[in-house]
Amino acid sequence: MNDKKDYLHKLRHSAEHVLHQAMKELYPQILLAMGPATDDGFYFDFDSKPEGKEAVTITEADFPKIEKRMQEIIDQNLPITRHEINVIEAKKMFGENPYKMEWIEQAKERGDAISIYWTGKPDEKGSMVDLCAGPHVDSTGEIKAFKLLSVAGAYWHGDEKNKMLTRIYGTAFSSQKELDEHLNLLEEARKRDHRKLGKELGLFTFSDMVGKGLPLFTSKGATIWRELERYVVDEEIKHGYQHVRTPNLAKTDLYKKSGHYPYYKDTMYPAMKIDEEELILRPMTCPHHFALYMDKPRSYRELPMRLAEMARLYRYEKSGELTGLIRVREFTLADAHNFVRKDQAAEEVGNVLDLIEKIAGVLGLEKGKDYVYRLSLGDRENKEKYYDSPENWEYGEKLLRTVLEERKAPYYDAKGEAAFYGPKIDVQMKNVLGKEDTAFTVQYDFCLPERFGLSYRNEEGEQEQPIVIHRSSIGALERSMGFLIERYAGLFPLWLSPIQVGVVPVSDQVSAYAKSVHDAFIGAGIRSELNVENKTLGAKIRDFTLQKVPYLCIIGASEEKRAREEGKAYVSVRTREGKNRGVVVLSEFLAELTKHIEKKA
Amino acid sequence: MNDKKDYLHKLRHSAEHVLHQAMKELYPQILLAMGPATDDGFYFDFDSKPEGKEAVTITEADFPKIEKRMQEIIDQNLPITRHEINVIEAKKMFGENPYKMEWIEQAKERGDAISIYWTGKPDEKGSMVDLCAGPHVDSTGEIKAFKLLSVAGAYWHGDEKNKMLTRIYGTAFSSQKELDEHLNLLEEARKRDHRKLGKELGLFTFSDMVGKGLPLFTSKGATIWRELERYVVDEEIKHGYQHVRTPNLAKTDLYKKSGHYPYYKDTMYPAMKIDEEELILRPMTCPHHFALYMDKPRSYRELPMRLAEMARLYRYEKSGELTGLIRVREFTLADAHNFVRKDQAAEEVGNVLDLIEKIAGVLGLEKGKDYVYRLSLGDRENKEKYYDSPENWEYGEKLLRTVLEERKAPYYDAKGEAAFYGPKIDVQMKNVLGKEDTAFTVQYDFCLPERFGLSYRNEEGEQEQPIVIHRSSIGALERSMGFLIERYAGLFPLWLSPIQVGVVPVSDQVSAYAKSVHDAFIGAGIRSELNVENKTLGAKIRDFTLQKVPYLCIIGASEEKRAREEGKAYVSVRTREGKNRGVVVLSEFLAELTKHIEKKA
Repeated sequence: MNDKKDYLHKLRHSAEHVLHQAMKELYPQILLAMGPATDDGFYFDFDSKPEGKEAVTITEADFPKIEKRMQEIIDQNLPITRHEINVIEAKKMFGENPYKMEWIEQAKERGDAISIYWTGKPDEKGSMVDLCAGPHVDSTGEIKAFKLLSVAGAYWHGDEKNKMLTRIYGTAFSSQKELDEHLNLLEEARKRDHRKLGKELGLFTFSDMVGKGLPLFTSKGATIWRELERYVVDEEIKHGYQHVRTPNLAKTDLYKKSGHYPYYKDTMYPAMKIDEEELILRPMTCPHHFALYMDKPRSYRELPMRLAEMARLYRYEKSGELTGLIRVREFTLADAHNFVRKDQAAEEVGNVLDLIEKIAGVLGLEKGKDYVYRLSLGDRENKEKYYDSPENWEYGEKLLRTVLEERKAPYYDAKGEAAFYGPKIDVQMKNVLGKEDTAFTVQYDFCLPERFGLSYRNEEGEQEQPIVIHRSSIGALERSMGFLIERYAGLFPLWLSPIQVGVVPVSDQVSAYAKSVHDAFIGAGIRSELNVENKTLGAKIRDFTLQKVPYLCIIGASEEKRAREEGKAYVSVRTREGKNRGVVVLSEFLAELTKHIEKKA
Repeated sequence: MNDKKDYLHKLRHSAEHVLHQAMKELYPQILLAMGPATDDGFYFDFDSKPEGKEAVTITEADFPKIEKRMQEIIDQNLPITRHEINVIEAKKMFGENPYKMEWIEQAKERGDAISIYWTGKPDEKGSMVDLCAGPHVDSTGEIKAFKLLSVAGAYWHGDEKNKMLTRIYGTAFSSQKELDEHLNLLEEARKRDHRKLGKELGLFTFSDMVGKGLPLFTSKGATIWRELERYVVDEEIKHGYQHVRTPNLAKTDLYKKSGHYPYYKDTMYPAMKIDEEELILRPMTCPHHFALYMDKPRSYRELPMRLAEMARLYRYEKSGELTGLIRVREFTLADAHNFVRKDQAAEEVGNVLDLIEKIAGVLGLEKGKDYVYRLSLGDRENKEKYYDSPENWEYGEKLLRTVLEERKAPYYDAKGEAAFYGPKIDVQMKNVLGKEDTAFTVQYDFCLPERFGLSYRNEEGEQEQPIVIHRSSIGALERSMGFLIERYAGLFPLWLSPIQVGVVPVSDQVSAYAKSVHDAFIGAGIRSELNVENKTLGAKIRDFTLQKVPYLCIIGASEEKRAREEGKAYVSVRTREGKNRGVVVLSEFLAELTKHIEKKA
C-alpha cells in the first residue's frame, strides 16, 4: 500500500515536471518557483509577471491547450534522469531565476548536494531541466492519466509580504479508471463543500464589515448548533461531567504560568492593557478550569472530577489559512478537563473514548471507517518542544497505548505530535475524499498539574498531585458543523434539520386548515414552516426540496374535507427523497416524528 | 411622598453634619473632604492622615463612642443655619483644608454663591461650620433616630490616582420605628447578598489568577444558567424570534460606522491590531445582527424579523465599580433586534413587553411591584448626545408612550436618559431594599437603520427603511442570576435548583437501595445527589439543608424492606422548609416532581 503511495507521489511529481515543460514552451517568459507533489495530486507555482517581461494570465480556459502539450510530451516517453551538480554549475544554470537561486543558496548553507532532473536527453532540443530533489518515475510515458484542476494565486513561501505567484493544481494516476474515480470524488466533494451548501441552505455567512474568519450563523445554522450543543452537554452530564462557565478573558500572566504562552503566542490575540490589568483572549480553557479546581481544597472523594464547558476560544489564523467553518478566528470547543488520581487515569481515558464513540455513533460515524485514533508521542531528545520528564512520558505513553490496545481500537503511532505537556490520542476524522484530519484530542497531562501546584488530599490525608485528562467529545462546534454538512451533503437527520416539516397548502381555500396543521407541529415542538406565498404548488414544493426539508405535508381540499367530516386532521405526506407516503392521520404522523426526533436517528 | 423624601434627605444631610462635628471633637486632626446624603442614608469622607498630622484609624469598634457624642449634639437641639459668604471669607475660614479649598475654587470659577451651614451659634464654643450647599433641617433635635453602619476606604473623587480617604456610612430617620425597619431590611439584604450566598451555595467564584470582574460559574451556578438560558431561548423562539450566533469580535470600523464608538469607547476594550486587521471585542450586538440582516435583500414579507442571541459582550468597568455578578467585565445579554415596518413598530413594542412580562411572571416577578417601566426621552437641545432628527424623536417617543398608556403599564418619564439613537423603555427592577435599577431596555431606533442603509422591498416594490427595536427579554444572564439569588434568598424554585433532590441513606445496609432511588431520579432527568459519605444522618441532612436542596429522600431499612416485599420503591420525603411528607411511592413522587419542573412553578 505504501509502495503504491510512494509510486503515485513520484508519478505526480513527474507530471508536474511535464506541466513545467509544457508551460515553458507555451509561455517562455514565466519563471518556475516551485512545484511539489501532494497527497492527491501536484501543484505548480510560477511567476507570471517576471520583472521586465510581459505578464501572462492563465485561466482554466487555457487548460486544454496546456494539457494537449503535456500529452505530447508524455507520448514522447522521454526519460527522466537525475544528475548531481555543484553550486557554481547550479548558479550558472539557474542564474536567471531568483526563486531557484534562493533554493540553491539554502542548499549551499545546509551543505546539501544539489540535484537536477532532466526530462529528455540533457541539453538537447525538446528537453527540460529543473532543480529538484526528486524522486521521479523513469520516463514520462508512465503517466497514464492526468488532469489539470484549477488555477489560483499563492504568495511565495505562503507569506503575503512576498510576491503573488500563480498556482496551477493538477493530479495524475497510473490509470484512466483511477483518475475518473478521483474526479468523481472531487465532484462529489465540490457538491458537498460546506461553504457552498452553507450558502445554498442559508446556514451561515461571512461579512466584510465584521471581518474574515468570523462566521455568522443564521437562525437555521444556529438551530443545528443548538441541537448539537444541547445533545452534547446533556450527554456529557449523563457521563458524570460537571458543566461550568468561565470567562473568555484572563490575565496574560495566567498563560505564562501555564507555560502555554511561548507555544501559542503566535496565534494568540494581542494582550489588552487597561489600567493595572493586562488581559488576553483565551486560546484554551485549561487554566480557567484549573482556577475552578483550585477554588477550594479537594479530596480524593471528588475524583474523577470532570469540568466541561462549551468554551469560546480565540486563535488568530493567517488569512490564507482561513477555510469556511474549518479554520476560523474564534471557535467553540466542547472542552473538558478530567482531574483524576494517577491510578484512575487509564480507566478515565477509556471512559472518554466511550463517550466519544457514543456521540460519533449518534452522528452516524463509524469507528475504523470514518475515524481512527492516532497515538501522538513526544520526543525525549527535543527538550525545547516537550516538557522534560522522561519517566512521566514513558508512563503516559504506555498508558494510552494500553488503553487503545485493550479496547482493540484502530490506531497508529505518530512521533513528535504530542502536546508540550504530554502524549495524546488524536481523533482522526476522514472527510468525503478520505483525507484524514485531527478533529480533536484526548491528552494525558502530568505537567500542568505540577506547574499550577494542583493537589488533592488522599485517603491517608496527604496532599497528592492529580493527573489531568484534557479532552473534547466532538471538537469545535464550528468545525463539526462544517464536517457534518459535508458528510450529510446537507441532508441532515430529522433531529438536526433546521426545518423538519414544510406545510404546503394547495390553494387559498385550505390555508386556514394548513395553518392549523402547522400550529399542531409547532405545538408539538416540531420545527414546521408554512409556505403561503403566492406561488404555484410545484414552486413551493421545489423551495422546500432545495432546502432539503425532510418531510412535506401537502394540504389539499380532500384532506380538509375529510378533516371537517371526521373531526380528525389528515395530511398528505411526501419525503425529501420523493417518496409519497399518501394521506395519514396528523396525530399519528406527529407521534411518529416525535419518536424519530427523540431517537436522533 | 416626595415631600417626605426631601425631608429625609435634609435630615440625613444634617445627621452627616452632626457626625462631622462629633468626629472633629474626637479626632481634631482629621480633615473633612465631603459628606452627602444618599437615597438611603449618608456618608462622610475624611482624610485620616493629613500631612504632618498623626494618622487616625477608625473601625466599627469606634462607632459606639462616636454615636454617643452624636446623640449628645442632637440632644442639645442646636440650630442649623445657612449663611452666604464671599470667596475671600471662605478661603480664610477653610484655608487649612485642601479639599474644601478645591470646592471653593470650583464655586469661584462657576461664579456660584458660597454658602456655609453653622450647627449651633456661629463662632461659639460647641458649634461647627461647614462649607455646604444644603439644604438642612432647622435643628439637630429633629434627628430622631440614626445609626452608623460601616467604614470603608474611598478615593478622593473616586479616582484611584488620588489619595485614599476614610468613608463612614450611616443613616437617619424621623422615628426609631422607621430606622429599625430599615436596619431589618439591611440585615435581610446582607443575608441575601448574592456574593455571600453565591459563595455559601458554591454557585460562582472569582480568581485572582484569572482577573477581576470575571466570574467563574461552578457546575451548580452553570446549571441555573443553563435552565434560564434554555427557557428564555425556547420562549423567544415560540414568540417568533430567530435565534442566531454571531462572533464576539468585529473590525473596529464596524463600531465607527454604527456610531457607537464615540459613546462607548471609554468602556470598550482596546483594539487588537494584527496583520491587516484591527479587531475589537464587541460592546453590543447590533452591528452583527445588522450584518446578518444585510446578508441578502429583504422583503416586507419577512418583517417583523426578530434576530435574537445570547450574546457575550465586553465592557471594561473600573475596578471600583465591579460588584459581584451585577457589574462585570464580560457578560451575556439576552439580546435581540426586531426589524419592523414603521407601521408595525407599536404592535411590536407591545409584543416585546408581553414577552418580558411573561418571562418575569415565570420568575415570580410582579409588574408594578417588583418592576416598573421608565420612559427614557431624548433632549432635542443636546445635539451632541442625541442623533439630530426632531421629528423622528417626537414620533418615537409618542409611540412608546402610547404603547405604555394603552396597556395601562406602570411607568414614569425620565428626560435625557434615551440612547443616542432613540427613545427607550427601561425595565426598572426593584431589589430587596426597594432600590430601583435599570435591568434592561426596549429601544426604538430610527437612526442606525439610516447609518447602515438597511432596507426592505415594500409591497409596491420600492426600497424602504425599517425601524429597529433593540430589546432584551431578561437582561444580562449574570445580572439576572445575581438578582434572582437575592430575590429567592438562594431558595430557588425546583426547576432552577442546581440539586433538586438529595438522597440520604440511613445506613450502609440500604446504600444499594438508595443508589437505585438516586438512579431513578437521574433517569427521569431530575438532578439528584446521593450522599454516601461517612457522616451521621443528621450531618447529611444538614449538608443538603444548607445547600437549600428542595427535597430530601431519607432511605431507611423500612422503606427498603417494603420495596423488597411489594416490588415497588418507597421513599421518605422531607422538604427544605422542614415539612415531613412521610413515606411515598417513588414513581408517584417522580411524576409529581416532573410535572412541577415542567410547570416552572
